[in-house]
Amino acid sequence: MNLQQLRDAALAIAHAAIRAVDPEALIHKSVRLEGDRLIIGATNIALSEFRRIIVVGAGKASASMARALETILGNRIAGGSIVVKDGHTRSLQRIEVIEAAHPVPDERGVSAARKLIGLLKENARRDTLVLCLISGGGSALMPLPAEGLSLNDKQAMTRLLLECGASIDEVNIVRKHISGIKGGQLARAAAPARVCTLLLSDAVGDAPDVIASGPTVGDPSTFSDAKAVMEKYNIWHRVPKSVANFIQSGVNGEIKETPKPDDEIFRNVSNDIIGNNRSALIAASEKAVSLGFRPLILSACISGEAREVGTVFASIALETANSHNPIAPPACILAGGETTVTIRGKGKGGRNQELALSAALKLAKSGNIVLASVGTDGTDGPTDAAGAVVDTTTVERARKHGLDPVAYLQRNDSYNLLEPIGDLLKTGPTGTNVMDLLITLVG
Amino acid sequence: MNLQQLRDAALAIAHAAIRAVDPEALIHKSVRLEGDRLIIGATNIALSEFRRIIVVGAGKASASMARALETILGNRIAGGSIVVKDGHTRSLQRIEVIEAAHPVPDERGVSAARKLIGLLKENARRDTLVLCLISGGGSALMPLPAEGLSLNDKQAMTRLLLECGASIDEVNIVRKHISGIKGGQLARAAAPARVCTLLLSDAVGDAPDVIASGPTVGDPSTFSDAKAVMEKYNIWHRVPKSVANFIQSGVNGEIKETPKPDDEIFRNVSNDIIGNNRSALIAASEKAVSLGFRPLILSACISGEAREVGTVFASIALETANSHNPIAPPACILAGGETTVTIRGKGKGGRNQELALSAALKLAKSGNIVLASVGTDGTDGPTDAAGAVVDTTTVERARKHGLDPVAYLQRNDSYNLLEPIGDLLKTGPTGTNVMDLLITLVG
Repeated sequence: MNLQQLRDAALAIAHAAIRAVDPEALIHKSVRLEGDRLIIGATNIALSEFRRIIVVGAGKASASMARALETILGNRIAGGSIVVKDGHTRSLQRIEVIEAAHPVPDERGVSAARKLIGLLKENARRDTLVLCLISGGGSALMPLPAEGLSLNDKQAMTRLLLECGASIDEVNIVRKHISGIKGGQLARAAAPARVCTLLLSDAVGDAPDVIASGPTVGDPSTFSDAKAVMEKYNIWHRVPKSVANFIQSGVNGEIKETPKPDDEIFRNVSNDIIGNNRSALIAASEKAVSLGFRPLILSACISGEAREVGTVFASIALETANSHNPIAPPACILAGGETTVTIRGKGKGGRNQELALSAALKLAKSGNIVLASVGTDGTDGPTDAAGAVVDTTTVERARKHGLDPVAYLQRNDSYNLLEPIGDLLKTGPTGTNVMDLLITLVG
Repeated sequence: MNLQQLRDAALAIAHAAIRAVDPEALIHKSVRLEGDRLIIGATNIALSEFRRIIVVGAGKASASMARALETILGNRIAGGSIVVKDGHTRSLQRIEVIEAAHPVPDERGVSAARKLIGLLKENARRDTLVLCLISGGGSALMPLPAEGLSLNDKQAMTRLLLECGASIDEVNIVRKHISGIKGGQLARAAAPARVCTLLLSDAVGDAPDVIASGPTVGDPSTFSDAKAVMEKYNIWHRVPKSVANFIQSGVNGEIKETPKPDDEIFRNVSNDIIGNNRSALIAASEKAVSLGFRPLILSACISGEAREVGTVFASIALETANSHNPIAPPACILAGGETTVTIRGKGKGGRNQELALSAALKLAKSGNIVLASVGTDGTDGPTDAAGAVVDTTTVERARKHGLDPVAYLQRNDSYNLLEPIGDLLKTGPTGTNVMDLLITLVG
């Protein structure tokens, strides 16, 4: 296959992968009604045991997920509310759609979260079935400060935590302890109802307690752990007074802990991941086979600095071309996850574009290799591109345009290099998000 | 297999891989005498056509390579000289061993290089067979400034080039044009003799013109290219006067160019890579199979920031454990190359130790995974370790010792974290160098 054919194939594989994680398609694939029984993955529920079905949820894809549920369950759904990002609505029959701000939460999100908790408490009976739809962005879209705290307090805390160098696990321990909904507290509001959570995962590793901060997952951490994090990073005396008081009350046992994983409420709760990065990679792999490639999935949990990850995958592509390891061409090497970009310059770009540009530098003049890096949500950084598709001639084509790829990469300006040479990949918003895909084709 | 068994297996695989690239073993594997014919890889030479065999060379492993050649050819060798790093000598019968400084060259290296060129010019006849032994460090060990230039001029230029941000390819274009031996000039001194170069590659990608700056490989670049590099980075007016004059004379056609790849002298020259990182990976793969693992070689040309590469390989190991992609356990995932470390703190460590520590952070608490990163020369950075072997309990064990892995990684202090918990890998000097090996075992 020549480079143009490989580029076309990379785009076809990317599109097939993104289609496979469309939220409506995933719900239809994972949820079905068989007579009186509702089957969600391994979970099998006799609907006759429940007087009412309530649907709640939050996330950018929740409206699409809800629409599919309405198609499957129709008027068996008594009602419910879901929270979506502004503009991410769908027309629904029985479930209310509330819009709120993302990624920075607002008071509309707080009201929406209160409404969900209120709805669950009203219906907190053993004969209620709660279907909870969680997707990326869910945490910001239903921000419920714990009693006595404000949204400002929460946001000030999040900023402090991110600046002090705490790990994401440590940040989450604190966040769960100043929230009224995270860390299993949504499930507690619903108890003793049966809760089935359907998750579309946008988190590296798919841990259900990480996706939207685990509203229906038991939290092993404690108020003391939260205080210890703040002491470790010397911010305990800098946090808002209201937060310090709240946490200290928790440490003193004056406030109820988040529900722990062994809490009996979770016997009535299931969390099923209906789609994730790996789902997209598997679809990519199937599409690659249909196009004549040997596929190899390397990982669905890639993390790290984008440009360095690009270099590593370029190294693997070169080896494939040179020694037929790890697999002989025509090969499709797949990976996914979410990389990060350390800002060094004032350029325009995104993690996928930067990864691809860095890979292009290592791949220059090396034959029949194409690499595409694409955000499954259709956006990469603050640009109109979803990512990029580069090949072994990218560097040469850029230089012919008078553009120096090394300089553009150095100042995080991948967009402005890739755009004029036609190596950007644009899809528009896709309505889903399972992080990024990395597709390497060796012809 | 439990973690201890995986750790033992990782060490056994590392040792087998390093043994396989022992310079003497490689020469015996690649070179043989069949009656009157000398066979070196695909090259087949009738010794009766030659009146004398001369051996020259430079590199840390050259003495070992020469010893094996003496064993094979005995008194057919008329004589020769090789240059090695101080202390890397071997007792030889017919070939002189000269010691010089490495990695910073010295005047002993210059004299040695002059001696080699003199010897070749004396024997520059069609009935001379020159066997040239090149290994890592060869460039620094035979530094021959071009006529009229001093070693100081060369070193000043190298510093300027490295500081100005020129790429390694650009640096090499200039270096070849201020040298009297690099860029094919050693082969020119020997012409019209038959020259067979045997290379032990320590370069990512194994390009013969990169290994020891290609003393017997045609150089496509010109004096004008060299001047253009210096102008591009605005250092043309800051280089030593003698260097500027020399390059300008070259541009004016007053000095002979380096020999170009199509020069007829190269019809009589062959360059054979007898060992490289991939040779070690193949041996590692075979050893892994014998220990019951499914092997997968991902790349022999890995580059990038050590800690980021560690994160990527940890991601692949986690995927292997979770989804049996790219290969089902018990799996041995192999890679090699040479990473870099950006110095952030004042700690003690090396690229292999830093890669392993970073991987350990991502692997924490994830089951049966062991990752070893090791320098095949037996040294990693300015430490007495060759690398490290970490597993999914490394982080926990460090914390029990009161050590914070994140903080140690941040200040480049991997040695002082890994040493007390017994995760360093020490081999002592191995006498070879094909860059680093990365061995990931998933049980």
